Amino acid sequence: MIQNAAGRFIPEFINGEPVVPFQGVGKYRPDGRKHAPVIATYADYPLDGNKQVATLKEALVKAGLKNGMTISTHHHFRNGDLIANMIFDIAKGLGIKNLRWFPSASFPCHAHLLQYLEDGTISHIEGSMNGPLGRFCSEGKMKKTAVLRSHGGRYQAVQDGEVKIDIAVIGAACADPFGNANGLNGPSASGLLGFALADSQYADKVIVVTDNMVTFPCIPWQIQGNYVDYTVEVDKVGVPEKIVSGTTQITKSPDRLLIAEMTAQFCEATGIIKDGFSFQAGAGGTSLSIGIFFGEIMRKKGIKARFARGGSNKYLVKMLEEGLVEYVLDGQTFDLEGVRSMRDNPNHVWTSPFTSYNYHGKGNFAGMVDVVILGATEVDLNFNANVVTHSDGYLLHGIGGWQNCLFSKTVILPLPLFRDRIPVIVDEVTTVCGPGELIDVIVTERGIAINPLRKDLIEKAKGSGLPIRTIQELKEEAESICGKPEKPQFTDKVIAAIKWVDGTVIDVVRQVKQ
Amino acid sequence: MIQNAAGRFIPEFINGEPVVPFQGVGKYRPDGRKHAPVIATYADYPLDGNKQVATLKEALVKAGLKNGMTISTHHHFRNGDLIANMIFDIAKGLGIKNLRWFPSASFPCHAHLLQYLEDGTISHIEGSMNGPLGRFCSEGKMKKTAVLRSHGGRYQAVQDGEVKIDIAVIGAACADPFGNANGLNGPSASGLLGFALADSQYADKVIVVTDNMVTFPCIPWQIQGNYVDYTVEVDKVGVPEKIVSGTTQITKSPDRLLIAEMTAQFCEATGIIKDGFSFQAGAGGTSLSIGIFFGEIMRKKGIKARFARGGSNKYLVKMLEEGLVEYVLDGQTFDLEGVRSMRDNPNHVWTSPFTSYNYHGKGNFAGMVDVVILGATEVDLNFNANVVTHSDGYLLHGIGGWQNCLFSKTVILPLPLFRDRIPVIVDEVTTVCGPGELIDVIVTERGIAINPLRKDLIEKAKGSGLPIRTIQELKEEAESICGKPEKPQFTDKVIAAIKWVDGTVIDVVRQVKQ
Repeated sequence: MIQNAAGRFIPEFINGEPVVPFQGVGKYRPDGRKHAPVIATYADYPLDGNKQVATLKEALVKAGLKNGMTISTHHHFRNGDLIANMIFDIAKGLGIKNLRWFPSASFPCHAHLLQYLEDGTISHIEGSMNGPLGRFCSEGKMKKTAVLRSHGGRYQAVQDGEVKIDIAVIGAACADPFGNANGLNGPSASGLLGFALADSQYADKVIVVTDNMVTFPCIPWQIQGNYVDYTVEVDKVGVPEKIVSGTTQITKSPDRLLIAEMTAQFCEATGIIKDGFSFQAGAGGTSLSIGIFFGEIMRKKGIKARFARGGSNKYLVKMLEEGLVEYVLDGQTFDLEGVRSMRDNPNHVWTSPFTSYNYHGKGNFAGMVDVVILGATEVDLNFNANVVTHSDGYLLHGIGGWQNCLFSKTVILPLPLFRDRIPVIVDEVTTVCGPGELIDVIVTERGIAINPLRKDLIEKAKGSGLPIRTIQELKEEAESICGKPEKPQFTDKVIAAIKWVDGTVIDVVRQVKQ
Repeated sequence: MIQNAAGRFIPEFINGEPVVPFQGVGKYRPDGRKHAPVIATYADYPLDGNKQVATLKEALVKAGLKNGMTISTHHHFRNGDLIANMIFDIAKGLGIKNLRWFPSASFPCHAHLLQYLEDGTISHIEGSMNGPLGRFCSEGKMKKTAVLRSHGGRYQAVQDGEVKIDIAVIGAACADPFGNANGLNGPSASGLLGFALADSQYADKVIVVTDNMVTFPCIPWQIQGNYVDYTVEVDKVGVPEKIVSGTTQITKSPDRLLIAEMTAQFCEATGIIKDGFSFQAGAGGTSLSIGIFFGEIMRKKGIKARFARGGSNKYLVKMLEEGLVEYVLDGQTFDLEGVRSMRDNPNHVWTSPFTSYNYHGKGNFAGMVDVVILGATEVDLNFNANVVTHSDGYLLHGIGGWQNCLFSKTVILPLPLFRDRIPVIVDEVTTVCGPGELIDVIVTERGIAINPLRKDLIEKAKGSGLPIRTIQELKEEAESICGKPEKPQFTDKVIAAIKWVDGTVIDVVRQVKQ
């Protein structure tokens, strides 16, 4: 084991590959070249552009599916995804073994794949472990070590050739037989297909699967058919009501509402909310409420935001349509209003992990955002935060765009001081996902802690009347109420690696001792 | 010298690089990998995304401009371009020598650069030679050999690493300091920036220059800032009235009108014009007229086209707005109406040489077009055609997308039987740009010749009442009127290579004997 710059002990090899330890923010320098795909020739593709084959099985066989390959899928259909399960059912039927599954995220609907992790069809997952798959992994049952990456880190890993995808299967709400595809039109509309961009550009073989095949051209093309080998039409790629919710809801919890209001007040008091500013909030209940408070402040001040980053939802769409926000730059879409707006409003623009988050590009959008509102399962006294493991030690969440967003100008984590009588502020987080130097403010219902590195914010918050406290004070208050919980117990077995945005390993997760 | 599959004698080396001779359509198989750019890191770029520097000179110096580099520019501003001249004025001022200029096309406005070809600032040009630069080249005055490629071939060459660009300078009508850019908004609006796509993706350093710098985000982004190193604002990137014409005009020549009408009649008689068909015509007077005749036929039949390919113009925009055409997929824009439509109409979509023409992709759009209308300077008895040299042997034109379009389902060349009393149909073309097997129909004012390979079209044209003749008959008729002109005389010196779409050399051009 070696100790990395986050102070964590990590193995020198994971799945037989040498590990580059986290070296500090901006410290690791890549020295290679991007992954170079094989040069294709039009002579190998149908001249009339029709790449459609009859079944997904035929496409996978034509793409050369065999033991040990890396198969990628994407989470545009979220918990309504049907594609990943189909692929591995086919692989099982063909007797294929030892596949690496490389999803952009996994959801409870993928519990179907536990049987294939058990029987060796799938050797391991590199991607988020939401719910049942995470539990399986935390119990040490996965044959190899999981690797978790942020959305930007996934793009980086593919671009840099760290993960070579043999076959990418891209599910799309709409496609043409050439392979142009979007997430906007059709029963399985999800908004956009940005998580599949890297795969389309760099995978050896690319298959587009849709339940809404249209005559060329599929407009707009979010995925370009010029990267696609085969196209397939199936009955159903997803379960619509599980892809996007009909409605997103603001929180009704008085504590959460208080946290949301304090977050907005903090941003007003410190001058973050100003004409032409930019913000990113999520689609959780608290985040939605913060957006609404932001809107109220902007109306009161008569100002507007230059842009907001999604995932979008009906509240953000309303702000766009009201003119409070000039542009919405979206990475994903959480409800039907968001899909409609992205389809119809040219100021509602789809982005990708390349534009927004790729750390190994010539910059990305994250650093241009004035303030980002994020969650966490735990924060420690050094402002390090955890988003993947729970207080019981189980790996139950993916990283998403969370690490990438830490590069925005101000990072605020609005958090309840405790959840189920477990304090959220701890001495040391179970898993370091983000280094404290990038996390600026913790807003809880009992006070706001500002990272001492942000002297500017500490200065600006003076005289605001807001309850500014130290993070130690907040931790002590929580412990005085809840007591200090026992730490979860782990074996020595590393079950997952947590990558930083630059491909280095910032921490590992160990098997939970049951 | 070696003889290639087009029967042409070509040197084994050009500019010191080994030549791959043309091997027949679809015969050459690339066996390498795409060019792999160096992996960048956000740590080297401003965190706030502001990459703006004060002057183009500063940007070029920061990008490491030095002797022998390859500098690319693009022809979005056509004959109104100011950028290329600025770059080489700066290079001259810095005493830099021996640059390879790699424009997507050059125009008469670039005659300013003749002095730098003379004094060694520029060693040679790889790109089209329109007008004065072509004449200079044809007279054997350029220090090295020119290399001409189609739009798709240029993308292919950059993608495949055949041409490594050190510094790409992308002029844009609109950009933000991060480098997102489009050709839609601002005084130098040109419609789109697709010709710079390969350069942005593969060049070592990328500079975006605009006269209309806007606050992030520049929407839409046709060029993605994540590929860009530096941005610059200058007073003027182009001369608007020379970028797009205020109006495009249909031909008034009775002969040209007759050719246009016969072309449309041929397409009707042979069933090419049918519901859901697709077509591509240019913006020359005859092509515009053909589009208008197509529209009349479609109205009469009550049918519409699924898509048309541009370069677009007010007539095509009218068809789109009338609903005769569902989508316009545009590679460039020839007038202000085209720019407006592309900006405002979501069914008017910008494309790039990657989507439309790259032969080393997984297919491209060209083969999906039912009928394409192209020009030529000469055609021979085997239907081989020439678009780069004139009857006097001078290299005066670029290839443009011409070679790429030959892959469409039916290729028609509407041509006058003679120009200035020089017959257009010859025994053997001066320069082979496109192999006869891909050219289907020649329409002249005195008859229509169908390539004997297209038995289906010959059959369908029977009984149409159209004057179907053999190409020999047309040639003999022209010669009976004009006589047989003397062939131009050349020295042995090769002054330019003509690449086929796959990077092989299909022909060379020799110095004109003066």
